Amino acid sequence: MKNVIVGQSGGPTAVINSSLYGVISQAFEQSDISHVYGMIHGIDGFLKGQYMDMASLSYEDRKALCTTPGAFLGSCRYKLSEDLEHSDYSQLFEQFKQLNIGYFIYIGGNDSMDTVSKLSRYAQKIGSDIRIVGIPKTIDNDLVLTDHTPGFGSAAKFTASMVREITLDSSVYDLKSVTIIEIMGRHAGWLTAAGALARKFEGDNPVLIYLPETDFDETTFLEDVKLALDKNQTVVVCVSEGIHDKDGNFICAATSHMQTDNFGHTTLTGCGKHLENLVRDQLGVKVRSVELNVTQRCSASYISATDAKEAEEAGRFGVKKALEGQTGFMVAFERDHTADYKITYSAVDVNQVCNKEKQFPASWICNHGTDVTKEFFDYVTPLIQGDCPLPKENGLSHFAYRK
Amino acid sequence: MKNVIVGQSGGPTAVINSSLYGVISQAFEQSDISHVYGMIHGIDGFLKGQYMDMASLSYEDRKALCTTPGAFLGSCRYKLSEDLEHSDYSQLFEQFKQLNIGYFIYIGGNDSMDTVSKLSRYAQKIGSDIRIVGIPKTIDNDLVLTDHTPGFGSAAKFTASMVREITLDSSVYDLKSVTIIEIMGRHAGWLTAAGALARKFEGDNPVLIYLPETDFDETTFLEDVKLALDKNQTVVVCVSEGIHDKDGNFICAATSHMQTDNFGHTTLTGCGKHLENLVRDQLGVKVRSVELNVTQRCSASYISATDAKEAEEAGRFGVKKALEGQTGFMVAFERDHTADYKITYSAVDVNQVCNKEKQFPASWICNHGTDVTKEFFDYVTPLIQGDCPLPKENGLSHFAYRK
Repeated sequence: MKNVIVGQSGGPTAVINSSLYGVISQAFEQSDISHVYGMIHGIDGFLKGQYMDMASLSYEDRKALCTTPGAFLGSCRYKLSEDLEHSDYSQLFEQFKQLNIGYFIYIGGNDSMDTVSKLSRYAQKIGSDIRIVGIPKTIDNDLVLTDHTPGFGSAAKFTASMVREITLDSSVYDLKSVTIIEIMGRHAGWLTAAGALARKFEGDNPVLIYLPETDFDETTFLEDVKLALDKNQTVVVCVSEGIHDKDGNFICAATSHMQTDNFGHTTLTGCGKHLENLVRDQLGVKVRSVELNVTQRCSASYISATDAKEAEEAGRFGVKKALEGQTGFMVAFERDHTADYKITYSAVDVNQVCNKEKQFPASWICNHGTDVTKEFFDYVTPLIQGDCPLPKENGLSHFAYRK
Repeated sequence: MKNVIVGQSGGPTAVINSSLYGVISQAFEQSDISHVYGMIHGIDGFLKGQYMDMASLSYEDRKALCTTPGAFLGSCRYKLSEDLEHSDYSQLFEQFKQLNIGYFIYIGGNDSMDTVSKLSRYAQKIGSDIRIVGIPKTIDNDLVLTDHTPGFGSAAKFTASMVREITLDSSVYDLKSVTIIEIMGRHAGWLTAAGALARKFEGDNPVLIYLPETDFDETTFLEDVKLALDKNQTVVVCVSEGIHDKDGNFICAATSHMQTDNFGHTTLTGCGKHLENLVRDQLGVKVRSVELNVTQRCSASYISATDAKEAEEAGRFGVKKALEGQTGFMVAFERDHTADYKITYSAVDVNQVCNKEKQFPASWICNHGTDVTKEFFDYVTPLIQGDCPLPKENGLSHFAYRK
């Protein structure tokens, strides 16, 4: 009888806790697993001795995980050393030993898969039989070797819904106006592209969509907007936060403070605001920018039932595969292209996943870098289907809280 | 047999179309009303000859109005002249005559009630028997002589929900952080105060709330945040866009472009971003700002059933009172304080409403201007109750569109 330890890492999503629910529920169903522990704040917190016994969660709280955004266990951005001799590794495995851990499950994105990769290599190095498993999550949808990632479908649904509602809001006055919606996505434009789903009819907004997969040129952008204003009273533009010029410089408001996180990523703000000022100065038209910001990844009301189900299944599949003896893998999604929409789960080598980014396909970008093709609509539409009823209390959503 | 003409004016809300639905439906039910016309883009569009016959709407589209944000008929910000001799007045009443209008219904906020006031005074001046009626709407909740306004409950529900979800999102890392949420409200803090509903337990976020009804001092603010950080890992702050210093200067990012609309109001941006920079520079802590922006007033998924019902009833009541012969009034809400929560509708003199603003009561502000009292919770909680199921198509909300 061995125990499971599960953790969450990286930026939260609306369904990362559905994967946690899947891991816990599957582990509880396995007769050969005794305890299920949760790392508090990922490996960072666990290194400081922070963890909980998931059996302490009531059934109601466990169920509520499926509609609770954020990261129930807390998250971290902790980069393990490239040097497998670093004391973190021996300390972690010593702690695993004390808790009789047989299975380490980590729910996260790119950087978290780096952690899974390193821990699995360390386990191999020391001959440990602890199974090391990665469960994917990221609203960015930028992990390789998987059709898509849990978290993306709900974020795409939220983004498309907001773009549709903001379009209605922007269209009420009888005057030419431009609304620029800034959407998350540092290097991958998947989420920004999902703004296209907001269209209700041919020629509807957003009429312009800019992804970070193409170079952004301000002069061309102003021409695009001017042309669009000739045809439309209201012009809604979706831009990815990561748009950049041909030299790779991000398009940002000059005033924005550049920060970097522990993985050396730059925290971006303000390309929407920058373009708003540009349009006002150069075209003299009414203009507004809206930054969807973190609401894209934490909105429970827009959880896609498909996304939530797949997030849970990914967690369950990870536990099952680990119990079958597999290690050093990430759960991946394969789409059956012969069926209407059908996903099967597989285990892919985590070393082939970590530190890589799956960009939006160049062949799905059209209209000189201002739109996306039908192929993308076919790809993304199934991922946003279905609603998840939220438990309510006093008019607001009820969420699970760690005591 | 007379006809009705209805219009929408000012900023949209999530339920302004519920009021439109109420007006149309009630008018259709009255045997002494023949046609119901809708002004396209309010009096501005109507002066240009733009209107539609509401009978052209299918029953399905009419029903869909109740969950469609924006302003179905289009809106305007058109200020009628103070001089009742201005040609706009004679032109409007000539057009009314051509359409055999007996009842003019205008759905809007403060500035729109100014229009209702002027038109009713002009009607009196020329001895017209056209009944002139105002139906209130504003997310700002700043109209006088009414317990609250349609649009506020849904915006409050959206705001509280977002603050709760952003709090979960902000709390995932094990490090001190500050999140500043900028909420609409130029002169009235009602909507910002609603952020307090997000709290789940004693001491929960948002721990600091700043309304425009008190002077904002940056030094005191930094002290408040520092103290809060001593007690909390995550500090979430709600600020109204209209916060200002003791001399009345708005707290804005220095880079923001100041615009004014036709009523001379300043379009504000950036107090959240300004405070974010201030906290980063002065306290050196991880900080983020989120501007909820127009999503506060156009989010269909957060429509409060109570708000939607009252918005519709306000429209119906306006038509009924007009048919009884009343004119120059705005529909107002009276709360029965003996019952759990019960609203009755009344007609108040529109001249007493327009160009006034109902501020958040000073006695409901506590903790040195950083929080709101239990009285506000008792006031606002009934207004956010109940959800409205949205018709869906292909994973997204289905809305009514003007052809």
